[in-house]
Amino acid sequence: MSQLVAKTGLRALLVRGGVNCNMLVRCVSTVTKKPMLVHSFGDFSIRSKYVQVTLLGSFNLKYRRVCSSSEMEKKDEKPRIDTVKKDQNGGGSVAVPSYWGIETAKMKIARKDGSKWPWNSFMPWETHQADLSIDLKKHYVPKNVTDKIAYVIVKLLRFPTDIFFQACLYRRYGCRAMMLETVAAVPGMVGGMLLHLKSIRRFEHSGGWIKALLEEAENERMHLMTMMELVQPKWYERLLVILVQGVFFSSFFTCYVVSPRLAHRIVGYLEEESIHSYTEFLKDIDDGKIENVKAPAIAIDYWRLPEDATLRDVVTVIRADEAHHRDVNHFASDIRSQGKELREAAAPIGYH
Amino acid sequence: MSQLVAKTGLRALLVRGGVNCNMLVRCVSTVTKKPMLVHSFGDFSIRSKYVQVTLLGSFNLKYRRVCSSSEMEKKDEKPRIDTVKKDQNGGGSVAVPSYWGIETAKMKIARKDGSKWPWNSFMPWETHQADLSIDLKKHYVPKNVTDKIAYVIVKLLRFPTDIFFQACLYRRYGCRAMMLETVAAVPGMVGGMLLHLKSIRRFEHSGGWIKALLEEAENERMHLMTMMELVQPKWYERLLVILVQGVFFSSFFTCYVVSPRLAHRIVGYLEEESIHSYTEFLKDIDDGKIENVKAPAIAIDYWRLPEDATLRDVVTVIRADEAHHRDVNHFASDIRSQGKELREAAAPIGYH
Repeated sequence: MSQLVAKTGLRALLVRGGVNCNMLVRCVSTVTKKPMLVHSFGDFSIRSKYVQVTLLGSFNLKYRRVCSSSEMEKKDEKPRIDTVKKDQNGGGSVAVPSYWGIETAKMKIARKDGSKWPWNSFMPWETHQADLSIDLKKHYVPKNVTDKIAYVIVKLLRFPTDIFFQACLYRRYGCRAMMLETVAAVPGMVGGMLLHLKSIRRFEHSGGWIKALLEEAENERMHLMTMMELVQPKWYERLLVILVQGVFFSSFFTCYVVSPRLAHRIVGYLEEESIHSYTEFLKDIDDGKIENVKAPAIAIDYWRLPEDATLRDVVTVIRADEAHHRDVNHFASDIRSQGKELREAAAPIGYH
Repeated sequence: MSQLVAKTGLRALLVRGGVNCNMLVRCVSTVTKKPMLVHSFGDFSIRSKYVQVTLLGSFNLKYRRVCSSSEMEKKDEKPRIDTVKKDQNGGGSVAVPSYWGIETAKMKIARKDGSKWPWNSFMPWETHQADLSIDLKKHYVPKNVTDKIAYVIVKLLRFPTDIFFQACLYRRYGCRAMMLETVAAVPGMVGGMLLHLKSIRRFEHSGGWIKALLEEAENERMHLMTMMELVQPKWYERLLVILVQGVFFSSFFTCYVVSPRLAHRIVGYLEEESIHSYTEFLKDIDDGKIENVKAPAIAIDYWRLPEDATLRDVVTVIRADEAHHRDVNHFASDIRSQGKELREAAAPIGYH
């Protein structure tokens, strides 16, 4: 049986447009009679011009201890007892081999109001509040040949997309946004994967860039999951996405291998175009050309929006996310432009 | 200027070998004059047989608000002011384009004792305490042809590795562990990437499996970063790793596309072998064949080990991690064996 005793205190003070807070959690765990390391949780503090945090322990860790105790109780069961449980998303019944001590079906995650947390693809602690204070008008002026090539490539890519989306004018920006997110979620994954392979191949650290790029990919995927709720893709759109993904993944993969600098610059410019598209989207909503429907449930949970949030609020936070990706990728390209490896500069933290 | 006012309280009570705690954070933010959504943080609760948590807000969110306020102060600066800062890891001077509002060089992360947090590749809140209560003896008995193929493949893979590692007997298990981790970090990344591409290609949710597999890959990479500190690879080992990664990545990629069920089963068995190897490693340490040196700093921070932790402690927590991956991958293969998609079962949470 485990014992978990926790105490915490959080102070937050206004410090020059920033935060100054302290948080403490103590833990003593005697989950099992077996020998185990018992000691305090990760113990650290962060200081910057804007923030000071001292934190002992994390929610994840407590959660993991809980998982372990659930596994422990399974030890004495005979192997491979499969119990059929209902998937949280109502995705049909699925077998949960208790023998493996994986208790996901037993776990019931709910909001504070008691309503069930309906998403398996992201947990409450993985949600975020978009930074709406970010400058949306930034533009990286091409400085050298690589920058100009990236800029021209992105501008050229607009023609076929513009032509295609004229075809579905009646729902132009919703359709456009959804389709483009299926492409936007690729670069972060390709970059993150290649940096991961490079790190383990060369026995060198990542500087946090693997995580930063994978978080970008996941964030773009969540944009798609949201747009899906607003615009159901037609069969020919689904077909196009499959074809485009095949071509774009291969092209971007090759581009990143040959020149990460060019690859990140291209993404930076793609995000600038993306911000432009979402701004047009907002204009159409404000002009009444697109109905400002209620925000889908997934968007309200993922961006922590108020219950009465609308499509306009959703497009606004998505646009802010895209601005973050623009900054991160131009930053990455700048580092490479100076002949440095990304790992030589700490990856942006808090971006996604 | 932003204002962040937070309050928190955490209660933890012993409940049948579990936890019962509540945590509250309130926030009012008026970061900018620009219109923005002001509302409470993500608000949720978790209930299971073992845990009940009610939580409003997260460290990440506060952190992100801080990033945003730092960006905000950059608004009035003229574009593209590049300042050269010292990399946290001492990796040489790198340019930090302040224009992009990315203030990583300004950010100073330190442990509670005030000592600087020396890692960019992982943050304090990404560290964890290994679950040492996990059953290390579990073995999945092959049930069908796919299982048998996976089992035979893994057993056959032992021959070349055993032969190779006889060559560096004098540091056998350290060398072996380091080399094998360069391979072990590949499957999670390949699986996570393919599930990510499938999710955006088919407009369907992931069930959390993308994150679960990517976390596995990152955890294996951290094992390698740790072993690197103990055993410096020779030039021929570096060469071998490059060749092996090329072959293994392509093979596993193809295998996962053709049969995710087989791919996950293979990883499950690889992890069983891995647990065996680390157990042998521990025996050699206990027998005095391998010196029980002090644990590297990166291991003490990543697994939250005590300051006086040794190599034995490090190998013990790595072995526990491998046991987690064994469970997750056999579980994934079980789901596929029933003709289900992974997304139909919630991914294991708290595993890595």
